[in-house]
Amino acid sequence: MKQNRVDRVMAALQEMGVSQMLVVDLMSIYYLTGVYYEPGERFYALLLRRDGKHAFFLNYLFSIPQEVGVEKVWYSDTDPAMEIVARYVDNTAPLGVDKELKARFLLPLMEKKAASGFVNTSLAIDAVRGIKDAEEQEKMRISSHINDMAMAEFKKLIHTGVTEKEVAEQMLKIYLDLGAEGFSFEPLVAFGANAADPHHSPDDTVLRAGDVVLLDVGCVKDGYCSDMTRSFYYKTVSEKHREIYETVRAANEAAIARIKPGIPLMELDVTARDLITEKGYGPQFNHRLGHFIGLAEHEFGDVSAVNPTPAVPGMIFSIEPGIYIAGDTGVRVEDLVLVTEDGCEVLNQFPKELEIIQ
Amino acid sequence: MKQNRVDRVMAALQEMGVSQMLVVDLMSIYYLTGVYYEPGERFYALLLRRDGKHAFFLNYLFSIPQEVGVEKVWYSDTDPAMEIVARYVDNTAPLGVDKELKARFLLPLMEKKAASGFVNTSLAIDAVRGIKDAEEQEKMRISSHINDMAMAEFKKLIHTGVTEKEVAEQMLKIYLDLGAEGFSFEPLVAFGANAADPHHSPDDTVLRAGDVVLLDVGCVKDGYCSDMTRSFYYKTVSEKHREIYETVRAANEAAIARIKPGIPLMELDVTARDLITEKGYGPQFNHRLGHFIGLAEHEFGDVSAVNPTPAVPGMIFSIEPGIYIAGDTGVRVEDLVLVTEDGCEVLNQFPKELEIIQ
Repeated sequence: MKQNRVDRVMAALQEMGVSQMLVVDLMSIYYLTGVYYEPGERFYALLLRRDGKHAFFLNYLFSIPQEVGVEKVWYSDTDPAMEIVARYVDNTAPLGVDKELKARFLLPLMEKKAASGFVNTSLAIDAVRGIKDAEEQEKMRISSHINDMAMAEFKKLIHTGVTEKEVAEQMLKIYLDLGAEGFSFEPLVAFGANAADPHHSPDDTVLRAGDVVLLDVGCVKDGYCSDMTRSFYYKTVSEKHREIYETVRAANEAAIARIKPGIPLMELDVTARDLITEKGYGPQFNHRLGHFIGLAEHEFGDVSAVNPTPAVPGMIFSIEPGIYIAGDTGVRVEDLVLVTEDGCEVLNQFPKELEIIQ
Repeated sequence: MKQNRVDRVMAALQEMGVSQMLVVDLMSIYYLTGVYYEPGERFYALLLRRDGKHAFFLNYLFSIPQEVGVEKVWYSDTDPAMEIVARYVDNTAPLGVDKELKARFLLPLMEKKAASGFVNTSLAIDAVRGIKDAEEQEKMRISSHINDMAMAEFKKLIHTGVTEKEVAEQMLKIYLDLGAEGFSFEPLVAFGANAADPHHSPDDTVLRAGDVVLLDVGCVKDGYCSDMTRSFYYKTVSEKHREIYETVRAANEAAIARIKPGIPLMELDVTARDLITEKGYGPQFNHRLGHFIGLAEHEFGDVSAVNPTPAVPGMIFSIEPGIYIAGDTGVRVEDLVLVTEDGCEVLNQFPKELEIIQ
């Protein structure tokens, strides 16, 4: 058990007036115990209790390391698993449950009156996970550093006649060679007008002079995700496309320049959006400015016009403004940033100046 | 909407005393509507009602075909989605919910008193899905036929010096060339003693004379899964290994010979297990005889010593006895079978005679 993290979650639960919680999200269990396991359909959960009588519910078929630092409660496929769980829950108090807990487990717990009430307390863990500790910050730096190096390799794949799919198919090996465990998400490779489509998958589109080359890519290293977007142009760039690019880059940099503890995240979105709107492209920036990231590529929390949460040191999120013109082009410039005591650290070092690949 | 299937599910719900159900399992929604969509974290559900006022809840961001034959209820990310759902549910009657429904949706529906009670009625759909209609039977035949052809190709990959991983890595292309959409599960390739480990993943083990070559493989074709195991020997086979092989094959064939409508599925398991036990390998057959299969590789329902469910025409399941001797060898012979009016149809045609690859 990572006691510091458990303590932070217990404190967050206490603020919600809850003294016990059943955690089932695989990444949250990994975050708290260091154990990552995929249980398939079988019940797999960590019960946290204010009195410290935590319990880790495991099927005998699971392969789990010897020492986890928490009581292991084993059950077999023929045991009444929810009855066993109910014995470990304080039935005189409400039970916080993970938002991911499925009806086939939640309904039996309710039927057995395992607790005095059931409430979704995932936010207690999600908010704690949103503020990375020193160990996590270092892993996020390394993951983004690999992503920077990979982007330099990806750029070399851009040449006349290449298709999006051909570029995308070479990315995994590059990441693996750089020491990553795999993709943090399927890479987005879009040429020209395809870059305006947010749902585009790499296809047989052939690169042409004047196309934008949008690469939205990331890897997993030591469990932690990177995520960066760069938009290059090929051979030549029109004046209009140059203006679009510079607007997006300026929006990215303006938002980053404002990051410091205490600033409401919505103000970062507004900063980038105002700048893009002034240039006349407001409606073409049709998504939020950023999202939180860590063990999962998209974690709880976003940088959007409706999120008043103030920035706190240790938060890591993306800053990714974009302008998308259907049938023409799409540009996005995305970095991951870490909020520090007096500003922020940008985790991506790959240059953002407009680059025209020859 | 596939009206026949909806009618069968509604009849099963009626037997449970439930008049409405919220379906969220992606494959169950596909089974009933023909629409397969991966909604990520967003709410995606089909409400079935006895009065025919079904509703399909969709986020505006989803790409869903124009015509589904059911009322579409669209919501946006800022809409109170569970409030919208509650308006379509009869709050004077219990609501059947899918076993997969998550707490973050179920708890708000309970809080809003969207129904007079909440009960897990997944069995109503799972039992119907367990009995394949003519269209599904034909798709299962085709998927298994591709699997038969693929096995013939896989056999050609077996030669001196080859590793498990090298064999496994060539399988996807073979399936794709044969017209499949992909694997139904990661292929299991195990040489020699590795075949005794149920959790073995293909590794750098090099094939040696006298090894068993266990291939447990399947593909998806038109959405339907195949699954077959064959165990070959390489160059030579010891008398003991030959006896083990023939025992497993006999168990497979004896169980299949008994399949007909009405027979309790547990009797099939007993038939195979008794035969293996008589030869002294009872403890080394350490899993159930089979599982149901269709849109998913493992569907609800199994062929085990504790399942008294009688066989019904249209059921498709695996018959896969095995004997596993740690540090020595492992043999499994697996076919998919379709229960017919007067017996069964074996969907796999690949030979089962002991084959010693030279």
